[in-house]
Amino acid sequence: MDVVNDILQSAQRLTGLIHQTPVMTSTALNTLSKAELYFKCENFQKMGAFKMRGASNAVAQLSQAQLDCGVVTHSSGNFAQALALAAKNYGCKAYIVMPSNAPEIKKAAVRGYGGIITECEPSVEARQRTAKKIQEETGATFVHPFNDYNVILGNATAGKELLEAYPDLEAIVVPIGGGGLISGVALSALCFGNSPQIYGAEPKAVDDAFRSLASGQIEQNSTTETIADGLKTNLGDITFNLIKTHVNQIVCVSEEEIIAAMRLIWERLKIIVEPSSAVSLAAILQNPTRFAGKKVGVLLSGGNVDLDKLPF
Amino acid sequence: MDVVNDILQSAQRLTGLIHQTPVMTSTALNTLSKAELYFKCENFQKMGAFKMRGASNAVAQLSQAQLDCGVVTHSSGNFAQALALAAKNYGCKAYIVMPSNAPEIKKAAVRGYGGIITECEPSVEARQRTAKKIQEETGATFVHPFNDYNVILGNATAGKELLEAYPDLEAIVVPIGGGGLISGVALSALCFGNSPQIYGAEPKAVDDAFRSLASGQIEQNSTTETIADGLKTNLGDITFNLIKTHVNQIVCVSEEEIIAAMRLIWERLKIIVEPSSAVSLAAILQNPTRFAGKKVGVLLSGGNVDLDKLPF
Repeated sequence: MDVVNDILQSAQRLTGLIHQTPVMTSTALNTLSKAELYFKCENFQKMGAFKMRGASNAVAQLSQAQLDCGVVTHSSGNFAQALALAAKNYGCKAYIVMPSNAPEIKKAAVRGYGGIITECEPSVEARQRTAKKIQEETGATFVHPFNDYNVILGNATAGKELLEAYPDLEAIVVPIGGGGLISGVALSALCFGNSPQIYGAEPKAVDDAFRSLASGQIEQNSTTETIADGLKTNLGDITFNLIKTHVNQIVCVSEEEIIAAMRLIWERLKIIVEPSSAVSLAAILQNPTRFAGKKVGVLLSGGNVDLDKLPF
Repeated sequence: MDVVNDILQSAQRLTGLIHQTPVMTSTALNTLSKAELYFKCENFQKMGAFKMRGASNAVAQLSQAQLDCGVVTHSSGNFAQALALAAKNYGCKAYIVMPSNAPEIKKAAVRGYGGIITECEPSVEARQRTAKKIQEETGATFVHPFNDYNVILGNATAGKELLEAYPDLEAIVVPIGGGGLISGVALSALCFGNSPQIYGAEPKAVDDAFRSLASGQIEQNSTTETIADGLKTNLGDITFNLIKTHVNQIVCVSEEEIIAAMRLIWERLKIIVEPSSAVSLAAILQNPTRFAGKKVGVLLSGGNVDLDKLPF
């Protein structure tokens, strides 16, 4: 496996399909954290989240015969929208399996990008079974939201852009849900920049990745009760192996810390980020001595938030 | 008066004191408006609004003797913060006259930038008298929030940046309060770009500029009841003359249209703008045929909003 070449080819493949997102800074947040923070704004990515990178990188590699049969995934979050839009760009059908209790606003967003929704019972078993059934009936290609090397390589292009713009970053902090983004960023840090340390940031309420690193096996969450709705997922085997090898540490933060960091980003950077994005800044502010005086990349994963349900 | 040279010198003077703000676009908002919209993001300006340009351009031209005596203004809004920060950059005192009923969050922001607040009764007469008294006691230089040629020239640099980046804009839509921003942008349109039409956008509730253009004299507002709190002010004689000469038309929008446009900007551009900023987009969406098929600059004037008091 030639990681540099894989990432370079992914970046080439994604040209025109995704935005090269800006990096923002804030004097106020630098003063507060005593660090130099470089926020990679994937909230400005197409469909509002980094997921567009991985989804597009997966779809772009399908043959015409595969495109003709469509793609399928199960997701109630940003990956559902991302795959729908990525498929639409190729005139390809996207079958999206969503739990019947998914918020209407998320279903509407998927439909808005042309996704074909199949509802199922809200359980892991039901969504896998439903996706499998669609695969068999339509011949559609299954694309996993994060546990897929092409998806991870697509995500890696966010790290590549950040490190090409700021090669002297000493650390990068990335939210962890299924681990697809941090896996990609960690791979990019092997190839670009000056070997920054990679930190994961995870809500305490769903600290499966933190516990997985401690135990050496993939752990499950006993609850999904966090405001960071993009980070409820457990790791997959591919992301777990990459995280074990390449991530320096995982920092867990409370719900209050997430909300406070989200508000700081809104007020100081004047940008809309979803709670999952704010987990990175929360991790930095919780550990001032670790990051003080350092140049730190901060991955803001997305900006899809329901303005009718703000935590402040 | 050599406008081109004045604007170029202002831009030179402001280098390092202000941000060159980005221009954002949105496929969704283009589809909705049937136009090509280019949003000039002064919400990302230092202290969160375009006011930093004019305030800095005024302070930067003071002599050391003047700087030693400080500057004074009356404002309960963004100009108060802007003058405080602009003065701070020169080690100069900023006396800010604010009405006693100004929100605590705005007073705190002014203090945060080192401004020295003097409270007065909430009337035009009281604030002018109080500012005059401070001038006499301290020798401070009075800087008007908008009715000042140097302030207007500072604001003009926003238009210059926009038109240098997108010289083929056919129209630019700008919110009107005291008229300082649209006056500056209209001057910049005489010097850069390809003679775009200049439209003002104003809340119906405080449509003094619209009525002033109709009657040929400066009209007052009988109420200040609008969510666009930056646009309550009447025109000054300098801004009125510039607007009469250089602005093609003023479009008035309802409170509902302002709130809807603000929400669209938050949801689609993923950025925080204050209600005053959203008036420009509201004016475009109210007049689809006028702007359809055109390349239109949209001035987003600022992003200082109290997250505890959102209209949605």
